[in-house]
Amino acid sequence: MLTISQRGYEMPASPIRKLVPYAEQAKKKGLTVFHLNIGQPDIETPKPVLDAVRHSDFKVLEYSHSAGNESYRKKLVQYYAGKGIDVNHQQIIVTTGGSEAILFGFMACLDPGDEVIIPEPFYANYNGFAVEAGVKVVPITASIETGFALPPIADFEQKITPRTKAIIICNPNNPTGYLYSREELDTLKEIVKKHNLYLFSDEAYREFCYTGTHFSAMQLEGIEDHVLLMDTISKRYSACGGRIGALVTKNQAVLDAVMKFAQARLSPPSFAQIAGEAAIDLPENYFDTIKEEYLKRRDAVVSRLNAMPGVTCPNPGGAFYAVVELPISDSDHFCQWLLESFEHNGATVMMAPATGFYQTPGLGKKEVRIAYVLNEDAIHKAMDCLEAALKVYPGRTL
Amino acid sequence: MLTISQRGYEMPASPIRKLVPYAEQAKKKGLTVFHLNIGQPDIETPKPVLDAVRHSDFKVLEYSHSAGNESYRKKLVQYYAGKGIDVNHQQIIVTTGGSEAILFGFMACLDPGDEVIIPEPFYANYNGFAVEAGVKVVPITASIETGFALPPIADFEQKITPRTKAIIICNPNNPTGYLYSREELDTLKEIVKKHNLYLFSDEAYREFCYTGTHFSAMQLEGIEDHVLLMDTISKRYSACGGRIGALVTKNQAVLDAVMKFAQARLSPPSFAQIAGEAAIDLPENYFDTIKEEYLKRRDAVVSRLNAMPGVTCPNPGGAFYAVVELPISDSDHFCQWLLESFEHNGATVMMAPATGFYQTPGLGKKEVRIAYVLNEDAIHKAMDCLEAALKVYPGRTL
Repeated sequence: MLTISQRGYEMPASPIRKLVPYAEQAKKKGLTVFHLNIGQPDIETPKPVLDAVRHSDFKVLEYSHSAGNESYRKKLVQYYAGKGIDVNHQQIIVTTGGSEAILFGFMACLDPGDEVIIPEPFYANYNGFAVEAGVKVVPITASIETGFALPPIADFEQKITPRTKAIIICNPNNPTGYLYSREELDTLKEIVKKHNLYLFSDEAYREFCYTGTHFSAMQLEGIEDHVLLMDTISKRYSACGGRIGALVTKNQAVLDAVMKFAQARLSPPSFAQIAGEAAIDLPENYFDTIKEEYLKRRDAVVSRLNAMPGVTCPNPGGAFYAVVELPISDSDHFCQWLLESFEHNGATVMMAPATGFYQTPGLGKKEVRIAYVLNEDAIHKAMDCLEAALKVYPGRTL
Repeated sequence: MLTISQRGYEMPASPIRKLVPYAEQAKKKGLTVFHLNIGQPDIETPKPVLDAVRHSDFKVLEYSHSAGNESYRKKLVQYYAGKGIDVNHQQIIVTTGGSEAILFGFMACLDPGDEVIIPEPFYANYNGFAVEAGVKVVPITASIETGFALPPIADFEQKITPRTKAIIICNPNNPTGYLYSREELDTLKEIVKKHNLYLFSDEAYREFCYTGTHFSAMQLEGIEDHVLLMDTISKRYSACGGRIGALVTKNQAVLDAVMKFAQARLSPPSFAQIAGEAAIDLPENYFDTIKEEYLKRRDAVVSRLNAMPGVTCPNPGGAFYAVVELPISDSDHFCQWLLESFEHNGATVMMAPATGFYQTPGLGKKEVRIAYVLNEDAIHKAMDCLEAALKVYPGRTL
């Protein structure tokens, strides 16, 4: 018998995309589906960013440098300098989305059987890349009671083994929206220094901070060799389809190894590098408008949710997600039921069951992730649906 | 000590790109460097293909479907039908270049420690993806005496172990230019059937056949579940920077597994999918012009090379490469010397030492790979350089 690989079996299906067939059925029935399930912003990609591609005038769509166009990397140096991150263009490797930066980080720093600690709930695809790299994910549970703050240092120490090689944080966090403080980053610094670990910092949502300011892992002094920054233009400029990210580090041995992985896949996409380069020249106030919009959405979501009986929604400091506790006992069932068996004013709502963001079995069953990527009016309609649904859902616990 | 991974060390550096710093130095000295070292065609990307991107009018650069836009996959079905390959759009997963198709194939079909047999010399990056996937490459040596034809079936049988899971061919071949015959594909069919193996067929150069016609592994009857086609638009439409390829198979279990890997990285690049879709509508005769151009170049290269004392160049049936035997004993040294210490009429030539295309240590030391991706005039000038160099190279063996 011809069989697929073991890792092909072990590879998790996307918890975010698995409900898609039910959403398609709901739409076929004529329902409006409010998509709060996926981090695809509705914000328009800035026109100058798209225009840079549309007005490009090269004749051959060539491979770029495996590390990305030098002109783009030099622009990124400027961008990072503006964020208080001091790097040169040789410390930046342009990747195919932030996804590839994560995979390259695993490949370059960890061997099969090595362990990576990740506070859960976490971005589900870390798991997928870990399976690809043969790396074992060791979760540390963050709690909704603290708004998903960094778990205590003792929890980390307890999980560290001789095979532990790295810690991943996503800051601000997908799926919780939690923004790590300077103090929490200092705590992480002590842990990685003491135990000689890498710190992978996924900062895809750096610009989306509503409460407090962003402090990057790249700004931690004294652990420069330990830190790998995983970045992407996807959310920042609403350019998810470009598939342009970056891996940034001052660790030369890691850069050399990552460069070999980058060479094997030849180059990152050329069109979107042009877009990414143009994006650096957007006016300073570009993010102000976007942030204002997201802030309104966040406030709408959080206040509506917390007004529902039995619902707890911490106030997220950044990104455009919230993990919310509902008066239910099986979030997978609830999210599917919303699409299959519920409607309110001709509409329903799609959310991501939080179970897919936890590694520890059994966690997240009362929680869902909400991505507030719709306009305020749509958000209110979606909240109306959810509120009505929680009154009639047969599996409600209130 | 913070260390990188073992696979980071094992990962081979690109044999094609490692001479780049020497080429840069040569250019700084004012020399013209004829690049016969890399498969970056100078052919212009067809205007309608670039225009499709330039005239696109979406407002949000969104993620596409993880398997690629359905409209593009449906167009690809048409394209394949025109090549005698009968597939539906659900059997096609659009990838980020052919590179990702190869990696996904390894990931979905082989586990760490499993073995893949590849006739050598072979495309060097197969090695890189094998290291990433923890797969062991087992080479079978093809010989310049037979023009790099498929090695005898007995050679395969001898290398097959319980860990052997797949055979990779590149047809027509990079780096040798060899075009596998229908009979050779039938031989492969018998081997994979008998030993229950996957057959990965990299057909990036399908359109570039000068002697004989292309017969795809997808056309082999009775082993539909065994065959994975790795494809790309890079060479076909001179669109290397687009980073759009495809993995095509009728094996549903493999498709399901690959889909999970595809979901983890979210989506292939959106801009170049638009380009790829437009490319399917190019007029039928598009490839005739291109092929005519490459044929002239091939004939120029082959005749010039075989006229040089001690040089053997088989006549490649396809692609735009040739592996050539030279009267030298160390091709790495020779290629570096050409860039560092030689000039002829203000120019020199850059080629890829064939050592990087062999897995068996010690092979390829007398051989180089030439990519005939320059126009005829440049090719003649490059051949003038090579001819002059072989007369004065201190390491020559004639």
